[in-house]
Amino acid sequence: MKVYLDNAATTPVRKEVVEAMQPFFSEKFGNASSLHSFGVEARNELEKAREKTASILKVKPSEIIFTSGATEADNFSLKGTALVARKEGKKHLITTAIEHHAVLHSMQWLETQGFDVTYLPVDEFGLVDVEQVSEAIRKDTFLVSVMAANNEIGTIEPFEEIAKICSERNVLFHTDAVQAIGKIPMDLKDIDLLSLSAHKIYGPKGSGVLVVKENVQIEPLIHGGGHEFGKRSGTENVASAVGLAKALELAEKERESEAKRQTALRDKLIDGVLQIPNTRLNGHPTKRLFNNANFSFSFIEGESLILRLNEKGIAASTGSACSSPNLKPSHVLLALGLKPSEAHGSLRLSLGRNNTEEEIDYVLEVLPLVVESLRKISPFAGQ
Amino acid sequence: MKVYLDNAATTPVRKEVVEAMQPFFSEKFGNASSLHSFGVEARNELEKAREKTASILKVKPSEIIFTSGATEADNFSLKGTALVARKEGKKHLITTAIEHHAVLHSMQWLETQGFDVTYLPVDEFGLVDVEQVSEAIRKDTFLVSVMAANNEIGTIEPFEEIAKICSERNVLFHTDAVQAIGKIPMDLKDIDLLSLSAHKIYGPKGSGVLVVKENVQIEPLIHGGGHEFGKRSGTENVASAVGLAKALELAEKERESEAKRQTALRDKLIDGVLQIPNTRLNGHPTKRLFNNANFSFSFIEGESLILRLNEKGIAASTGSACSSPNLKPSHVLLALGLKPSEAHGSLRLSLGRNNTEEEIDYVLEVLPLVVESLRKISPFAGQ
Repeated sequence: MKVYLDNAATTPVRKEVVEAMQPFFSEKFGNASSLHSFGVEARNELEKAREKTASILKVKPSEIIFTSGATEADNFSLKGTALVARKEGKKHLITTAIEHHAVLHSMQWLETQGFDVTYLPVDEFGLVDVEQVSEAIRKDTFLVSVMAANNEIGTIEPFEEIAKICSERNVLFHTDAVQAIGKIPMDLKDIDLLSLSAHKIYGPKGSGVLVVKENVQIEPLIHGGGHEFGKRSGTENVASAVGLAKALELAEKERESEAKRQTALRDKLIDGVLQIPNTRLNGHPTKRLFNNANFSFSFIEGESLILRLNEKGIAASTGSACSSPNLKPSHVLLALGLKPSEAHGSLRLSLGRNNTEEEIDYVLEVLPLVVESLRKISPFAGQ
Repeated sequence: MKVYLDNAATTPVRKEVVEAMQPFFSEKFGNASSLHSFGVEARNELEKAREKTASILKVKPSEIIFTSGATEADNFSLKGTALVARKEGKKHLITTAIEHHAVLHSMQWLETQGFDVTYLPVDEFGLVDVEQVSEAIRKDTFLVSVMAANNEIGTIEPFEEIAKICSERNVLFHTDAVQAIGKIPMDLKDIDLLSLSAHKIYGPKGSGVLVVKENVQIEPLIHGGGHEFGKRSGTENVASAVGLAKALELAEKERESEAKRQTALRDKLIDGVLQIPNTRLNGHPTKRLFNNANFSFSFIEGESLILRLNEKGIAASTGSACSSPNLKPSHVLLALGLKPSEAHGSLRLSLGRNNTEEEIDYVLEVLPLVVESLRKISPFAGQ
């Protein structure tokens, strides 16, 4: 049995999306900036994808900037507004300790360029305190970036409340909505900038959007021919944009039914796994994405767990995929107050539209045995 | 008859490339940074694509950085080395007046950040003077960027000689090889940084490479999970990388035979078009890409020409695709010494592997009539 439970890392492109993209490789292949009919055909389809995306997010088409993914979108958002803010004498940004590395490492880079960054702590469930955001805003603060939902522990942040405060205080609000989009309803009313990715919602890799509301002044991260309203240059990737729009449409269409179905599977999984002794659930018990389950098992290294589960056909992760190869303890789990040894022993199981109850039953059969056998050989057990 | 003669703007993805990419959408869809078998499978294929690309370019696999295209690669190259150079007290870059906007606009942005840029002129054929490059190098020069071949007029620059001088003078050399790759043999021995794009060689859009030789110190343009040896973050786009490697492999394999075939077609086209009165060939008569023909027709606006040809089924461009919508006269043609009115009346016909002699005959039948009819209604004719 092959059970893929790493849908927070990436998802397979669904059939309807592959089909929607297909014509744009070899047939409707024109450069969307060309004046001839090949170009006009590509341009029309690109703009249709933009309109569809905008309509789902309830923003204007001119506020949709297609990018090569959410990492680029996060970088563009923070660095692009920072360059404008500097001219206005503003140099302070606020974020949280549990953001994705695309945000955290962009913030750290901005610090090397003379900007000040406040990294807000989170509580034991990974929740940011709205009051703390408000208190951290200074006269020279230009942007607050708080993710909509965390990629490792699935905690859903009070991003709409934070957005409202930022709006009232005249500070830009950015949210990395990579994990949240298609999983929770999102009201973008007070959100100035929002990053999303296609490959987390059964769309293609290398495809993302930065929503840039029309009130936002931003400098390009990537200069050139002036594509995407002068905000992001590079020959338009029509296939990717079409794929993203289609994936987003289907994700929204199925959101409620999948929420119901996956919540039931997730809860069965959580209840079952918590039967294993010395196990804790990481993240918030209720304010969490319907597809996320994250556990810490005392006395065990996460990597060993992943590899043993892999031998049994179960694909899971410890921390996020992005930080897997470096084997550092998760910065998210450390921020919750876990000890490095506990953070090392974490397991993220993230569900998707293809998972079945049979698969969950299989995991609940295999996982306790794997944990038991690893604890038997653990030098930490019984200490 | 539909005749696509805008292959310098973009090309259709060839069948073999689409087939090579196909498995990576829905089957081998893993995140290449995941530790489980889905991830390992993706990682292996990504590294195979990297090795293939490296072997064709005769560089090390660790010197291949996959990007979202050549525009990103150009931006990364210039801005990434500039950030390092600044720490060493160096602030001068050298480029030419006829670079692609991805280079020129990155340079202009660097000027706003305190860097100095020398824009070298070119001669009437679009050639950069090697001596002038040498003379422009200062003590604080850290990088020279000269394109391998121009995208509008097809002129092949003496990039290998310039690279050699830069190497001797201990200055980095970057080349935008988007149009040259797959068309001319390229020796990367003295080249430190090289940008290329898949979609100009029958690969997918949104896929490029920046070659970064191991001696080069560079900061990321896109920060995050530390992908691509810490140089370019974002979930790896395996399908795109595989497509690029395949496209490059096939382009190199067919390079000599296509050079012969397309040169004959191009020369027939040039000879035929130059029969039209008051017509000039832009670019170098011999040092030019085998697929490029660029003309100026007195008394005519390029845009009208493109639209009339389009009505006859012929897809062509004036200037480059990137600058089409803004209707500014080509900065490349102005740099050759053409008057704005002449630069406005230019036509680029760029051949590709799918063009036939029959198509060239058709163009030679249609184009003189179109030019004649436009001149009849031109307010400039006869002045």
